[in-house]
Amino acid sequence: MANLSEKRVRAKSGKKAKKGAKKVASTKWVFLFKEGRADQKGLLGGKGANLCEMTRLGLPVPPGFIVSTKACNAYFDAKGFPKDLWPQVLKALETLQVQSGRRFGDLAAPLLVSCRSGAKFSMPGMMDTVLNIGLNDDIAAALAANPERTRFVWDSYRRLIQMFSTVVLELDHHPFENELKKRRAAANVENDSQLDAAALQGVTEVFKGIVKEKTGRDFPQDPLEQMRLAIEAVFKSWNGKRAIDYRNAAGIAHDLGTAVNIQMMVFGNTGPRSGTGVVTTRNVSTGEKQLEGDYLLNAQGEDVVSGTRMTKRISDMTADMPDVAAEFAKHCQRLEKHFRDTQDVEFTVEDGKLWILQTRDAKRTAQAAVRIAVELTKERLITKEEAVLRVKPEHVDFFLHPQFDMKARKAAVDRGDLLAKGLNVSPGAATGAVVFDPDTAEQLGRKEKKSVILVRPETKPDDVHGMLAAKGILTSRGGRTSHAALVARQFGKPAVVGITTLDVDVENKRMTVKGRTFNQGDIVSLDGTTGEVFAGEVPTMVPEFNDPFLMTLLKWADEIRELGVWTNADYPRDAERARGYGAEGIGLCRTEHMFFETERLPIVQKMILAANEAEQTEALAALLPMQRGDFDGLFRAMNGQPVTIRLIDPPLHEFLPSHDSLLQEVTELETRLKMDGVTVDALGLESRLSKQKRMLAAVDGMREQNPMLGLRGVRLGIHLPALVRMQVRAIFEAACACQKDGVKVYPKVMIPLTSLKAELIFERGILEEEAKKVMTEQGVKVKYQFGTMIEIPRAAVVADEIASLAEFFSFGTNDLTQTTFGISRDDAETGFLLEYLEKRILPENPFATIDQNGVGGLMEMAVKKGRKVRPTLEVGICGEHGGDPKSIDFCHRLGLTYVSCSPFRVPIARLAAAHAAIVNR
Amino acid sequence: MANLSEKRVRAKSGKKAKKGAKKVASTKWVFLFKEGRADQKGLLGGKGANLCEMTRLGLPVPPGFIVSTKACNAYFDAKGFPKDLWPQVLKALETLQVQSGRRFGDLAAPLLVSCRSGAKFSMPGMMDTVLNIGLNDDIAAALAANPERTRFVWDSYRRLIQMFSTVVLELDHHPFENELKKRRAAANVENDSQLDAAALQGVTEVFKGIVKEKTGRDFPQDPLEQMRLAIEAVFKSWNGKRAIDYRNAAGIAHDLGTAVNIQMMVFGNTGPRSGTGVVTTRNVSTGEKQLEGDYLLNAQGEDVVSGTRMTKRISDMTADMPDVAAEFAKHCQRLEKHFRDTQDVEFTVEDGKLWILQTRDAKRTAQAAVRIAVELTKERLITKEEAVLRVKPEHVDFFLHPQFDMKARKAAVDRGDLLAKGLNVSPGAATGAVVFDPDTAEQLGRKEKKSVILVRPETKPDDVHGMLAAKGILTSRGGRTSHAALVARQFGKPAVVGITTLDVDVENKRMTVKGRTFNQGDIVSLDGTTGEVFAGEVPTMVPEFNDPFLMTLLKWADEIRELGVWTNADYPRDAERARGYGAEGIGLCRTEHMFFETERLPIVQKMILAANEAEQTEALAALLPMQRGDFDGLFRAMNGQPVTIRLIDPPLHEFLPSHDSLLQEVTELETRLKMDGVTVDALGLESRLSKQKRMLAAVDGMREQNPMLGLRGVRLGIHLPALVRMQVRAIFEAACACQKDGVKVYPKVMIPLTSLKAELIFERGILEEEAKKVMTEQGVKVKYQFGTMIEIPRAAVVADEIASLAEFFSFGTNDLTQTTFGISRDDAETGFLLEYLEKRILPENPFATIDQNGVGGLMEMAVKKGRKVRPTLEVGICGEHGGDPKSIDFCHRLGLTYVSCSPFRVPIARLAAAHAAIVNR
Repeated sequence: MANLSEKRVRAKSGKKAKKGAKKVASTKWVFLFKEGRADQKGLLGGKGANLCEMTRLGLPVPPGFIVSTKACNAYFDAKGFPKDLWPQVLKALETLQVQSGRRFGDLAAPLLVSCRSGAKFSMPGMMDTVLNIGLNDDIAAALAANPERTRFVWDSYRRLIQMFSTVVLELDHHPFENELKKRRAAANVENDSQLDAAALQGVTEVFKGIVKEKTGRDFPQDPLEQMRLAIEAVFKSWNGKRAIDYRNAAGIAHDLGTAVNIQMMVFGNTGPRSGTGVVTTRNVSTGEKQLEGDYLLNAQGEDVVSGTRMTKRISDMTADMPDVAAEFAKHCQRLEKHFRDTQDVEFTVEDGKLWILQTRDAKRTAQAAVRIAVELTKERLITKEEAVLRVKPEHVDFFLHPQFDMKARKAAVDRGDLLAKGLNVSPGAATGAVVFDPDTAEQLGRKEKKSVILVRPETKPDDVHGMLAAKGILTSRGGRTSHAALVARQFGKPAVVGITTLDVDVENKRMTVKGRTFNQGDIVSLDGTTGEVFAGEVPTMVPEFNDPFLMTLLKWADEIRELGVWTNADYPRDAERARGYGAEGIGLCRTEHMFFETERLPIVQKMILAANEAEQTEALAALLPMQRGDFDGLFRAMNGQPVTIRLIDPPLHEFLPSHDSLLQEVTELETRLKMDGVTVDALGLESRLSKQKRMLAAVDGMREQNPMLGLRGVRLGIHLPALVRMQVRAIFEAACACQKDGVKVYPKVMIPLTSLKAELIFERGILEEEAKKVMTEQGVKVKYQFGTMIEIPRAAVVADEIASLAEFFSFGTNDLTQTTFGISRDDAETGFLLEYLEKRILPENPFATIDQNGVGGLMEMAVKKGRKVRPTLEVGICGEHGGDPKSIDFCHRLGLTYVSCSPFRVPIARLAAAHAAIVNR
Repeated sequence: MANLSEKRVRAKSGKKAKKGAKKVASTKWVFLFKEGRADQKGLLGGKGANLCEMTRLGLPVPPGFIVSTKACNAYFDAKGFPKDLWPQVLKALETLQVQSGRRFGDLAAPLLVSCRSGAKFSMPGMMDTVLNIGLNDDIAAALAANPERTRFVWDSYRRLIQMFSTVVLELDHHPFENELKKRRAAANVENDSQLDAAALQGVTEVFKGIVKEKTGRDFPQDPLEQMRLAIEAVFKSWNGKRAIDYRNAAGIAHDLGTAVNIQMMVFGNTGPRSGTGVVTTRNVSTGEKQLEGDYLLNAQGEDVVSGTRMTKRISDMTADMPDVAAEFAKHCQRLEKHFRDTQDVEFTVEDGKLWILQTRDAKRTAQAAVRIAVELTKERLITKEEAVLRVKPEHVDFFLHPQFDMKARKAAVDRGDLLAKGLNVSPGAATGAVVFDPDTAEQLGRKEKKSVILVRPETKPDDVHGMLAAKGILTSRGGRTSHAALVARQFGKPAVVGITTLDVDVENKRMTVKGRTFNQGDIVSLDGTTGEVFAGEVPTMVPEFNDPFLMTLLKWADEIRELGVWTNADYPRDAERARGYGAEGIGLCRTEHMFFETERLPIVQKMILAANEAEQTEALAALLPMQRGDFDGLFRAMNGQPVTIRLIDPPLHEFLPSHDSLLQEVTELETRLKMDGVTVDALGLESRLSKQKRMLAAVDGMREQNPMLGLRGVRLGIHLPALVRMQVRAIFEAACACQKDGVKVYPKVMIPLTSLKAELIFERGILEEEAKKVMTEQGVKVKYQFGTMIEIPRAAVVADEIASLAEFFSFGTNDLTQTTFGISRDDAETGFLLEYLEKRILPENPFATIDQNGVGGLMEMAVKKGRKVRPTLEVGICGEHGGDPKSIDFCHRLGLTYVSCSPFRVPIARLAAAHAAIVNR
């Protein structure tokens, strides 16, 4: 939207400019820092607008001015500087000279300026900068006369020539670097900063020679010419290939243009009363309210960042230069207050004078994000809603994912075991033995239950079974949308990819990184949240869910959100955990999960294979007390909160042995019997064969070509009403018993896979009859609801008919996505769906985030039609999307009653629901 | 709708009647025949309204009057005769006495009347009749004095008592029947008609005794009391269990009420100048324009129908009673002209006086229906549109189904080989060996390719495999919605069910019918269109499609219909047949069908299993000329008409050997090798094993849990673009070649299983590139279209996005029904879908007739959204529904461009499309 309106504005003003050019006063292209504001990022660029804002605040910002983005666009339109631009620059320069007390070309007090690009949106490293404009042979010579400055002057001059040559004159950078390399070798030093004045003066001369040789002209000595060419170069850089590629990838409009910032140079490396540093106004790891950061005396910014010199803690500054430190602290406070967020501030001290060079919102850890948001609110700097918005769902996720034990991680770093940092594409920490092929990963991981980390140069669909069996994934190649990244996120496997320093030797089953070699079975640890990889085991932990700041923030989210947050839980222990995480009800209890338990499966099989009604009745009678126990536990765990119980859903053959293994066994037995003839053993084999043949026949009888679309859900209930009856009885017997014990119960019986109203009529008949019977037997009246899943497209299309019977809807978006797309998730997510994501045919996995146009279109229809017939209809979602922030936003917009998700997603859903409520107001 | 408005009318008039009762004139409850019209069926019942109409026409109808349906409803409201009803009856009776010249209770000229029910809709046999009302002891004695009438009188009187007792007095019918039985035995005769006057007089006395004994009262002697009680009994019969059940089954509203017809009795059995007969005004077998029917002198109606006496042809009547015959012929002509259709007329001649008792539209064969409709149009009695409407799609179906050779059938009847007539539940004729269990049916039918007829007492889901393998099905039990009937119709198997005279002995594998026993393997023939079953072989034939009347009718249909009728054809021979049947284009050519041909399958497998691109390219190159040949043939067959070619659709594993048989073979080989150790043979086994293991691995790699929702359709095209490229090349090379030969070609390339716009972008890219390439190579420009199937719910929901790329839509309603319902047809149609139909959870099979609310809702959405973006969008349907009349009506209402169906359904679709155009005007 921003881009669009930008375009419109530009088109308009462009026209105006042309029309009015001859009549009215010329356009204002150039702005002094004191003339702009923070909210003029479109006109002045992000960096420029912030410099203006700080200037306006009275902070000691080196003076300067900005050539606007409009000027840039006019430059492209006019294929040259637009009318009046240069005179305006000169006028601004005049002011700058007054402000700084220095002048361009003055030998005693020369003005030096930087020339930097600055677009509306940050495009780090994509455009160009020239420093030290204003230096020339004469000025350098004059300044170098001061012995304290000699080295500094030649270093500054050679930098100007080097940057100007590559950025403005577009010369190849190699000759310049080669010269420096030669000098370092000659001086036997590692860093340019260790070269002495003489060496640097020599370098300067050689650089000038390169310019002359390559361009046929001398390096320009006129500061104005330097500046003019630099401005033009910055303009041009906007349409450089790198910048265009970046904008394409980041979705930034190409017609925004860049501004150019011209600012007086200040230097932290002019002596012991100078220095430079970078700080955050709060601790960005923990969120604690204290200045954090590093500085260096007599140094330039890059010295702090590069790590070539040992930095000092910012707290030490008070001792080194108490006045400056106090002033700086005051400014930091001011900035935080003004920008209403923790700032990342760069400063320089030149000969005892403090200059603030940049401020921006600081990047921070999840923990810090939460604490800062809460504390800023308590300090009344931001509202609760702003606080809630500033914490991202993935921040909350961090509190629930396995993480490295921080002490252990620190120890590992100290030991030097941090091997690499790659792309953090799938969060969570993992530790295990490295393996280099998917089959071994599967063998060790799945069959031998070992923790393994699958390491590959890159992954392919053939690797997926190994990825599934691994605890974590590492690749040396690939980006955020690589196969490995997609699959890992899909299956919630921690992964770090694109570790360029990692050399994977699949053939010899080993990898090398940071000079260390790891063979199959060696232990490594990785953190997909940060992208770090360690040698050896770094213990992981799931943190306690009791961070007081997070608790506060989520409480605020609860106050704001309109969506209920329920949970999908089949067992009391899950229900309890989810309640602890803030769930307000159970949105989905899958009753069949209870059937898979070891002691129950044989009874379930007996029920399925029953030769007659008596056998079936007997098996169901045996299951009844078990199911009753299940529900009893859930009701007690959720005391008073709604518990949505879905009647049996999966096809019955899922409870029987696998068809293929039966077929194999039968074939093997038959072959053996045929070959052996009647031997002593034959009798045993024969009886086994006949038993397994019967089972195979039973399984064959229930086998379906597309079980996902087969005899399951409500269809099964209609086919086997006795089973439904047993489940309903179990629910109501448990509910009555709980209610007698003073436990509040609120069961909601849910029918799966409905597509026809008649199905609900049939099922409700059974439900009402049996429920009434139990309540009469027990002498207790239980309040309950009857509802249905909406997970079949037809149910959405005829939701009005369905709602005439169902008292609530719950979207089963997993199945709804499968049927709406005609995609079998089991097959596709390890198959063509990945191909689709890679080929960008799908923008994202519709099983992770609701496909709003397609599946969402049906959901919208269902909500509308359903509520038309039953205005009070409660509508929830219990597919996995219920825990996905983007999908939660969609659910909010649809007006759903609640989302239901797995216990671990409940806190995320609470926050996401609050976000949805705020941003959709 | 009719029912609804009936209800409304009734509610209104009911209120009025109550309110106005005291003030205004009372309701008119009773209508003389001359007071009513044919269009008052709601008020007077169907029978009564027609009697009125005939009276109005001046035909000799025995006089009478009607107690209206309103009176019936008022009777139920008032729980007794409403005010004024009885006086009105008496008044009408007075008129009747004048009209007839007879009086109730008169000993010389007594009036006898019948009292019959008659509802708006015919409910044959569901309600009651009492004849001969007005007879009593005195009148009987007086009339019996005439010796010519003695037997007739006692027969009439005993009939009155018998009917009155069971219908009005609600006595058990057994005592009456036992008495008659006894009498027949004593007289040693078979029929009641053979009992003499004395015996009948005796019967009458005994019957009166039964009445006295059972009711404690004498049989009522007052004719008025008889009539009053009879009217009340007819009212009550409306709410009898039988009638209610019938209405429930037939969907007739329960609040319509029945009328009561009181009519003077006339008798065809009063002597040689009397007679009775039933005729149709045209031949209802052939449609020929001539009176057809039977009559008997000195007989009652039931004698003609029962077949106990040899009837005469109606043409003989001219000789027997020339004046009456001439008068009757004139009346018949009049009736046909008046009712504008062939009539089925009942008449009686009493002592030389002709009476017309009933007329109604005659039932007729398909052939007759077509000829009559065409000839009535030519006689200007009806319009072309009426003619078209009078022929039902199933009539046309008859011209295409296998039928008995009529001569052979006649010979079989004459031989006495007609064994039985049961319910004709699934059309078509079949002949084969009887088998009595499904496994044998499968063994002989599928494996040994023999023609078998499966005979069962009734069928169950376990029998389905046998039913599929059989040519036809017979059952002794079950009705039109029995399992056997449903399955048979589903799979187009001729079937006759509910053959009550058939005794099926499953255990001994034999059946007995009409005293003849058939063992397994004996040949029988059946015609599911008529319900006839014959011993031995009756040859069947598919009739030539050239009946001149049908050709005329279909030409008219073509003039009327708005929908195009296209065909689904994969081979030139099918295309030619369909053109002969009137198809206007190919709506679906399934290119993959060509891949399954014997000589191609190995190449297709090579392509699928290719280890590298070179191998794949080679296999595709080998397939190219074959596919080109396929398309070449189709283009030439359809010269100038559109040919819609769907690119490959099914999952690749369908082209590979079956997983299960591979698994079995591999297991068997492994077991044998394990047991044998290394023997002489081992080497051969091992090489086979390793080959099959490789194949199994390949099949396993492609195996999907739900192939229906898997890697197929457009997904396959995106996965294997080279295959799409080959298909496109084949299409365009063929098209160019044909065009060079002067053949007009109009290919439409269709993408299956689309759900995303991006899929179409991808596919269209390939299409356009390759098509352009071929056309450049060939120097020919071919006009073509690019379109897509709409067979996935998502495609319907985002049809606007899809239509931005697709130039046409074709609804694949088979898959769309599967995905919209979440039903796998292969599994469900032999499984729970049958259960659903039996339990009435589904009103009809959605794979046979479009589910208009659900699937239809999505179709409607797709048409609207698609045409919003592309108003000229051509939309067709190529699922099996394209040949189903109800679905065709729906397609017409949706505004589709065409329906496409199998060649054999094309004529039916032409007619159904015309019906749709007419009825939806």
